[in-house]
Amino acid sequence: MIQENLNFIIEILGTISFAMSGAFAAMQKRFDVFGVLIIAFVTSVGGGTIRDLLLDQPVFWTRDIFTCGVIFLSTLVAIFVKSIEKNFKVTLFLFDSIGLGLFTIIGIQKGLTADLHPIICITLGTITGCFGGIIRDILLNRIPLIFRKEIYATACIVGGAVFIILEKYSNFTLGFAQISTIAVIFTIRTLALKYDWQMPKIYSYQKNDEG
Amino acid sequence: MIQENLNFIIEILGTISFAMSGAFAAMQKRFDVFGVLIIAFVTSVGGGTIRDLLLDQPVFWTRDIFTCGVIFLSTLVAIFVKSIEKNFKVTLFLFDSIGLGLFTIIGIQKGLTADLHPIICITLGTITGCFGGIIRDILLNRIPLIFRKEIYATACIVGGAVFIILEKYSNFTLGFAQISTIAVIFTIRTLALKYDWQMPKIYSYQKNDEG
Amino acid sequence: MIQENLNFIIEILGTISFAMSGAFAAMQKRFDVFGVLIIAFVTSVGGGTIRDLLLDQPVFWTRDIFTCGVIFLSTLVAIFVKSIEKNFKVTLFLFDSIGLGLFTIIGIQKGLTADLHPIICITLGTITGCFGGIIRDILLNRIPLIFRKEIYATACIVGGAVFIILEKYSNFTLGFAQISTIAVIFTIRTLALKYDWQMPKIYSYQKNDEG
Repeated sequence: MIQENLNFIIEILGTISFAMSGAFAAMQKRFDVFGVLIIAFVTSVGGGTIRDLLLDQPVFWTRDIFTCGVIFLSTLVAIFVKSIEKNFKVTLFLFDSIGLGLFTIIGIQKGLTADLHPIICITLGTITGCFGGIIRDILLNRIPLIFRKEIYATACIVGGAVFIILEKYSNFTLGFAQISTIAVIFTIRTLALKYDWQMPKIYSYQKNDEG
Repeated sequence: MIQENLNFIIEILGTISFAMSGAFAAMQKRFDVFGVLIIAFVTSVGGGTIRDLLLDQPVFWTRDIFTCGVIFLSTLVAIFVKSIEKNFKVTLFLFDSIGLGLFTIIGIQKGLTADLHPIICITLGTITGCFGGIIRDILLNRIPLIFRKEIYATACIVGGAVFIILEKYSNFTLGFAQISTIAVIFTIRTLALKYDWQMPKIYSYQKNDEG
Repeated sequence: MIQENLNFIIEILGTISFAMSGAFAAMQKRFDVFGVLIIAFVTSVGGGTIRDLLLDQPVFWTRDIFTCGVIFLSTLVAIFVKSIEKNFKVTLFLFDSIGLGLFTIIGIQKGLTADLHPIICITLGTITGCFGGIIRDILLNRIPLIFRKEIYATACIVGGAVFIILEKYSNFTLGFAQISTIAVIFTIRTLALKYDWQMPKIYSYQKNDEG
C-alpha cells in the first residue's frame, strides 16, 4: 500500500521535474507558449516513451490523460515561476537532478519486471533518465548537456547499480532501495556541480576537420 | 464509398505535400540527390511512423510499396519544379500547410479508432502533423521551424479540437469534419503568415549560459 | 553451419566497426568517457533499433548482454588506439565503410524474412546501415555526414540492390551474396573517397532565409 503510493509519487514527481526543466530551457530560447509546452512534453515523456518502445510495451502516456494534465499544469507553473524569479538556475538544477533519479528507478524496475539482464536494466534506466533531456537538447539545437556537463550519465549508472544491488541482491525493501538510489544520484550531481567534477576527457591533438 | 476515396486522397495529398516540403528544404541546404530523397522520405513518413509506433500498430509504409513510390515521384517533381521556378517560398508554404491539415486528421482518426481519450487523440494528430517537419529540421541541423515561426502547432491543436467536436460530438459526416478541419488549419496558417501573428513568448532577462 | 557462423561474424564485425566509428567521433568532440561510451552505443545499435521497431520485432540488444559487451570492449580499444595513433582518419573510414556494408545486409535479410517488398527491404537495409551514423551526428550537433560527404547512402542502395538480385532472384549462395554486397559497398565508398565522387547537387539561387 505504502509502496504503491511511493511508486505513484515517484512517477508524478519525475514528470513534474522534467516538464519544468524542459519548460525553463525552452523559455531561455524564447520559444512561444506552445513551443514551451511541446518541449516540456517531450522532455518529460521522451525517455519513458523510448523505454516502452524498446520493451514493446504500451507507451505509458497514451493510456491515461493524467500524465498530460500534470505536464500541462507543470508548464503553467513554470511560466508563472519564471515571471517572478529571474534567476532559476538552481531551481532548474534541482528539478533536473530529482527527475533523473526518479526516472532512472522507473526504467530499471520495468526492465527487472521484463526479466532482463541487470546490465540491460541499468541501460534502460539510463535511457529513461537521460533521453528526455537529450531530445530536449536536440530540439533546442545544442549538443546534449549530458555530454558536456558535470557527471550526469555517470550519476545515473552508479545510482542504477546501487538500486540493482539493494533491490535484486539484498533483503532491503523496495522503498528503501528507491529512496537510497535517488539520494545517491542527487548527491553525486550536487557534489559534481559544487566541486566541478568532470569525467576524464580524451583530448584530440588534431584539428576537427568537419565542415 | 465517397468517404473511402476521400480518406485515400487525404493520405496521398499529405504524403506528396510533405515529401515536396522536405525536398525543397534539402535542396536549399544543397544536399545531393539521395540526401534530398532521404529528407523527403523522413519528412513525409516521420510523423506517421512515430504515431504508429506509439499506437503499437504496423508502421504504415512498410506494408505497401505505394507510399514509397509517391514519395519518389514527388521528389522528382520537386527537383524539376525547382529548376524552372527559383522562388518557391509560397509553394513551400502551401504544401506545408495542406500537409499539416491532412496528417493531423489522419492521426486523430487513428487515435479515435484505438479508442483513446480526445486529448490524447489531438496529441497524436499534432505528432503526426508536426514531427515529420521536426525530424526534417533536426537533420538539417536547425531549430525546428515549428518553434520559431508563426502559429504552427497551435493551428494543429485548434484544428484537431474542431475535428473532434464535429466528428465525435456532433452529427456531421466524417467528410464534412475532415474538410472543415483542413480549412481551419489552412486559414489559421495563412492569416498567421499574412498578419505576422505570433504566439506570446516568455522573454528571459538573463543571459543564455550554454557553451 | 558455415553460413550461421558468417551471419554471426557479420553482426559482430558491424557492431565493432560502428562502435569504434562512434567512439572516435565523440573523442574528436572531446566528450567525457561516458559520453564516448553512449555515442559508441547509439551509433552501433541505433540503425538496428529503428529497424526492429519498424518491423515490430524484439529490439535485438535488449535480449542478450553480448552486444553491450562487444560495444564496451570496442570503446575501450578505440580509446586505447586513439592514445597511440593521432591520425585515425583512415581507420575511421575503414570501420565506417565495413560497418555500412555489414549492417545493410542484416537489415535487408530481416526485411526478406518478414516477407516485405524488395524496395522496402532495401529501405530497411539503408536505415540499418545509415541511421546509427545519423543519430551519432545529430547528437554531435552537426549535419549528418551522409548528406554532405562522398557517395554514402548511394553505396548502401546500390549494394542493397546487388544483394537482392543475388539472393532473391539468382541461385548464388547466401554467403556469396553477402560477401559480394560488402565488397560492392566498400569499393564504391573507397573509389568515391579516392576520386572525390559526389552525387549531383541541385543548387539554389536564392539566399537561405532561415534565421
